[in-house]
Amino acid sequence: MVAVTIWNEFRHEREDEAVGAVYPNGIHEVLAAALADAHDVRTATLDEPHHGLTAEVLEATDVLLWWGHEAHDEVSDAVADRVHRRVLEGMGFLPLHSSHYAKPFVRLMGTSCSLQYREDGATERLWVVDPGHPIADGLDEFVELPETEMYGEPFDVPEPDRQVFVSWFEGGEVFRSGCCYRRGNGRIFYFRPGHETYPIYHDAAVRRVLRNAVEWASPTEGAPRTFGERA
Amino acid sequence: MVAVTIWNEFRHEREDEAVGAVYPNGIHEVLAAALADAHDVRTATLDEPHHGLTAEVLEATDVLLWWGHEAHDEVSDAVADRVHRRVLEGMGFLPLHSSHYAKPFVRLMGTSCSLQYREDGATERLWVVDPGHPIADGLDEFVELPETEMYGEPFDVPEPDRQVFVSWFEGGEVFRSGCCYRRGNGRIFYFRPGHETYPIYHDAAVRRVLRNAVEWASPTEGAPRTFGERA
Amino acid sequence: MVAVTIWNEFRHEREDEAVGAVYPNGIHEVLAAALADAHDVRTATLDEPHHGLTAEVLEATDVLLWWGHEAHDEVSDAVADRVHRRVLEGMGFLPLHSSHYAKPFVRLMGTSCSLQYREDGATERLWVVDPGHPIADGLDEFVELPETEMYGEPFDVPEPDRQVFVSWFEGGEVFRSGCCYRRGNGRIFYFRPGHETYPIYHDAAVRRVLRNAVEWASPTEGAPRTFGERA
Amino acid sequence: MVAVTIWNEFRHEREDEAVGAVYPNGIHEVLAAALADAHDVRTATLDEPHHGLTAEVLEATDVLLWWGHEAHDEVSDAVADRVHRRVLEGMGFLPLHSSHYAKPFVRLMGTSCSLQYREDGATERLWVVDPGHPIADGLDEFVELPETEMYGEPFDVPEPDRQVFVSWFEGGEVFRSGCCYRRGNGRIFYFRPGHETYPIYHDAAVRRVLRNAVEWASPTEGAPRTFGERA
Repeated sequence: MVAVTIWNEFRHEREDEAVGAVYPNGIHEVLAAALADAHDVRTATLDEPHHGLTAEVLEATDVLLWWGHEAHDEVSDAVADRVHRRVLEGMGFLPLHSSHYAKPFVRLMGTSCSLQYREDGATERLWVVDPGHPIADGLDEFVELPETEMYGEPFDVPEPDRQVFVSWFEGGEVFRSGCCYRRGNGRIFYFRPGHETYPIYHDAAVRRVLRNAVEWASPTEGAPRTFGERA
Repeated sequence: MVAVTIWNEFRHEREDEAVGAVYPNGIHEVLAAALADAHDVRTATLDEPHHGLTAEVLEATDVLLWWGHEAHDEVSDAVADRVHRRVLEGMGFLPLHSSHYAKPFVRLMGTSCSLQYREDGATERLWVVDPGHPIADGLDEFVELPETEMYGEPFDVPEPDRQVFVSWFEGGEVFRSGCCYRRGNGRIFYFRPGHETYPIYHDAAVRRVLRNAVEWASPTEGAPRTFGERA
Repeated sequence: MVAVTIWNEFRHEREDEAVGAVYPNGIHEVLAAALADAHDVRTATLDEPHHGLTAEVLEATDVLLWWGHEAHDEVSDAVADRVHRRVLEGMGFLPLHSSHYAKPFVRLMGTSCSLQYREDGATERLWVVDPGHPIADGLDEFVELPETEMYGEPFDVPEPDRQVFVSWFEGGEVFRSGCCYRRGNGRIFYFRPGHETYPIYHDAAVRRVLRNAVEWASPTEGAPRTFGERA
Repeated sequence: MVAVTIWNEFRHEREDEAVGAVYPNGIHEVLAAALADAHDVRTATLDEPHHGLTAEVLEATDVLLWWGHEAHDEVSDAVADRVHRRVLEGMGFLPLHSSHYAKPFVRLMGTSCSLQYREDGATERLWVVDPGHPIADGLDEFVELPETEMYGEPFDVPEPDRQVFVSWFEGGEVFRSGCCYRRGNGRIFYFRPGHETYPIYHDAAVRRVLRNAVEWASPTEGAPRTFGERA
């Protein structure tokens, strides 16, 4: 049982009726439902004090999911730093979709994390390019999503430690849509699918990926990481 | 000026009229023409003695291009071993298209190198996913080929050191179509495009990639590689 | 509980009294004792029919440990191929010490796997360079072995997917002594320590590494790996 | 001919007699002398306006060497950001020795970049673990420095794209002392040797490494890196 915290910006759902129709209680509640039978799940949102991410909450978190979009800049530097540090200590981190621009992800990557996009509601196929990876457990050879926002290359991130998915888009683009990294002791999995109006997080295969990724990103015991002057 | 040897199976062109129409003097001659103004190019083919790849030829080769398809098994183990050893010594190696199953490539990779394919003559777009790589010098954001044979994931190769291209196919598939590796001192670039009846190697952007890749794969001086008992 | 098979050449122990004194029932029995309380362990040796590695045995094996030294060439190509294929299918593979020259390891790497060595019985320290890796679980910042055979760089293997240990040797050398790879669906961990006359496999920290590595290398479910013509 | 800018903190040399004796005109002038016969070299230091790194200077720089130690925090965020952005655009970046804690390097890595150290003036041997890398051109199997400050693992950086050197220290430690990365279009080479009182940058082999690294890190033409909304 992994201690999971799901962080959501939670603005679109309250401001935009179309989003509210798909995610009436917020994206975080749908993500929580996808994980709650296997794991110990709590949620946190931008407009809570400290964005819901106090030192105590992060200390008690094994894996943090993150969904942000229109308000990346409203995340305080203090909280972004705290998340960053906890990932280096070993907390797993799963930035989703538009969170490629989330402060903690950009700090962990050290690059611009820019990409191309198009809101066209066309089909995406996430091909499993690494069928031996535990994040692909139980999937078919691809995951198909009938209506998506396109993300296209070049995606300005460091070469992933391991590429699990590459997406094909109906409109003619490709995207490295499932990327594994380690930074410090922390495991990071960027997963592209997700959108505020397409019901991506209701899809069974997407939910399976999220469950697999939580297991994969969970911290291990490790060895001491000593630094400073040595006798 | 790089000493380039282009190896071609050279069977389809002589046996099949449709292929002969596209490559009347063989695929190797078209590849040679793409490189000859910048480099010192020679060719070799399967049906020459030692497949044209004697120890002397390989010793004098900086970068070896390889095109094989229907007769991988007719390449002798002795020649495959010799090519393998020369790559480890530093010779660049550019296996093209169906040469994912070429003996020296399979030995260098250590995996099955299997993939999916479909002969449907549909469009391929090779997206540059690493715009900072010298193999992408002078390209646009993608290379488009109107008629190709599809290759699809999963491609059973080791995770590339660096991924330069990912292909989108009209029929719904993706493929890691430009993969960089180093093995020993040798640089290896697997490049997917190429076919016996589609005129791929007449395409200007494809020819640019081949010229770039020859430069990139050319040996450097390096340091000694000592092994065995040490005093 | 992981199904472990420990393969040992088992010649030194029977031919050389000094080796027999350290490993009276063979290196494989000491390795088995290090793993048997946690896992389901069987052993196999070179001089058994099919070297003890029939298709049935390999099919029932999750993780294969391998210790060879003076008789690498006596391993039949058929058995080496079978082991190679099983690793690509997902079986974990842990080549130990002088097994850097074992046939299945050399085939999986695609390089010469050569290195430098010196039999001087001096101290080795295996530094944990990746304290967040599960193979380092429960270790201190280094593992110290008072008497070892030195292995030195350059080690002619592909750049590891992840480097867990780097060794320091009293005599002035370094070595990448714990190297993780994936090939096909299989996880591979090359681990340097081990020798026929130094009692390396009686060391508690080395035994901890082996237990950790068995867990790490154990197969996961994965997704289908389809190849061939696609409709 | 590469346009090189050498940045130096230039404080120790003016404040501490022992340092001034080794580097009377500053570390940057000794580094400049090592490169000036092959390249177009300029220098910049912390106490110049904008630390000598205006947008114009950086725009005109192909490769930036960086030496900082006691005043990392005095580098303004504006200049650190500008260097960071220029690396992503393609400028090569060579942080030296204690610059593992330089602001632009830490931002590019996304990790703490912490390590262990000891000022003991003992011997270091930098083993070439990748003899086929152009940064190793013309070296022997190792570079030996008789008096150094020790740096020890774990070094908290992302797994390097390629490891060129691993150091052995007389006192019992190892360190990944030559690490290659790409971030955006920029090539980064962290090189450990260097100190304010040991005459490291007068060593011929160290100077050869620096010249090789400047060549290696020099920008290439590349392909367009488009981002934002796509038609």
